[in-house]
Amino acid sequence: MEKSKTGEFHFVTESYLLDFRGRISIPMIGTYLLHAASIHAAQRGFGFSDMNSSHTAWVLSRLAIEMDEYPGISEKITLYTWIEEAGRLFTSRCFELVNAAGRPFGFARSVWAAIDMETRRPAPLDVDALNAYKTDRPCPIEKPGKITPVENEAPGEPYEVKYSDLDVNGHLNSIKYMERLLDRFAIEMYKEKAVSRFEIAYLSEGKYGMPLTFHTMETSPGKYSQAVCHEGKAICRAATTWQ
Amino acid sequence: MEKSKTGEFHFVTESYLLDFRGRISIPMIGTYLLHAASIHAAQRGFGFSDMNSSHTAWVLSRLAIEMDEYPGISEKITLYTWIEEAGRLFTSRCFELVNAAGRPFGFARSVWAAIDMETRRPAPLDVDALNAYKTDRPCPIEKPGKITPVENEAPGEPYEVKYSDLDVNGHLNSIKYMERLLDRFAIEMYKEKAVSRFEIAYLSEGKYGMPLTFHTMETSPGKYSQAVCHEGKAICRAATTWQ
Repeated sequence: MEKSKTGEFHFVTESYLLDFRGRISIPMIGTYLLHAASIHAAQRGFGFSDMNSSHTAWVLSRLAIEMDEYPGISEKITLYTWIEEAGRLFTSRCFELVNAAGRPFGFARSVWAAIDMETRRPAPLDVDALNAYKTDRPCPIEKPGKITPVENEAPGEPYEVKYSDLDVNGHLNSIKYMERLLDRFAIEMYKEKAVSRFEIAYLSEGKYGMPLTFHTMETSPGKYSQAVCHEGKAICRAATTWQ
Repeated sequence: MEKSKTGEFHFVTESYLLDFRGRISIPMIGTYLLHAASIHAAQRGFGFSDMNSSHTAWVLSRLAIEMDEYPGISEKITLYTWIEEAGRLFTSRCFELVNAAGRPFGFARSVWAAIDMETRRPAPLDVDALNAYKTDRPCPIEKPGKITPVENEAPGEPYEVKYSDLDVNGHLNSIKYMERLLDRFAIEMYKEKAVSRFEIAYLSEGKYGMPLTFHTMETSPGKYSQAVCHEGKAICRAATTWQ
């Protein structure tokens, strides 16, 4: 069965998933993206179960989301996802979010790697299988880039990884990182502004019981850099632009 | 259009939603239940938007979930939901979870109220509209009952409500309460046992910046009672049975 290269997914925003502004949050967008990525990959032979049978697992390495606006209640969202390219160790997957009127209101770029489930070391990707679905559909947002380290300048707020934070690999879940990072901004900021770009880099694995520190600093007007550290070493970085 | 009384919903468990055991968690089950309740209600004329147009909102008051087993990866789940009864201030909705082989593996009972969005006081329900969909389909689990107060005996662990915890009403989200409560149990318990019954009672609204305390105590072997308090007064209680 020939599968089209671009996957198309449909969502309707639900009341109990909205934030206090009555808007979908960045972590919720992240959940939509992971859902689409997961099914798009599974339908093309390189999903979670396929990886699992070769004792490897997908690991999200980087993600950048740009939003022009945030949907409110009962809005229909169409999400497109496609593979931009695949190399030996990383593959990049793009996303486009379109509203009911057919207008794009958000884009995202993600970078994925595979790890060997025993050694937890990077595993080579099946480049040919991935590139068979590669398209040159445009994704008009900047690629995930370097995020300014702030752990030596901003004070560390302590956090401990808990049961609900853990994913099937026993590590801090990608979405939970987003929630914990976005929770460092005061509610007043969310009342006045919105995040126009959110970027996150997962550097190494956060485990249960690990004492972590969260560091947040404004690096230029409206731009914030964040670091999640374990024993002073960053395991995750994020950058947010507020407008 | 005549709608059948019982709603039927389909889910497939996804890798990035599993807990560290490779199993669906109680909060994820809770999300499935809310999804089904929300759509079942909307399709029958008493959904979030219908309530909103009369300046009222649904509030989940109590929820009890009993699970014989927890689905793993890529399992198909059929979820049935129906209205058991409706009174002037409360309505009870039941749920049945069935696996791909057609065998029920979980049931849930929920109690809902409406609040006036201005006064935040209880609002009368449209009893006739709700009871038009009432069925006597059996739900073979105990109704949500009294949960032993433990706030005066168990020490309080502090927690502050954050952005990601808030729902569209500006209060601590029902699912986040579950996550925060279940996070009070050590990972070792999850390795050895599973929650066979989880029950939660939402007593009053947790707001942003509110300093809360979480109290947890084993009240009989394998049975725990929890309280979430603000200034010593319980705003939420939960009871879990582990097997």
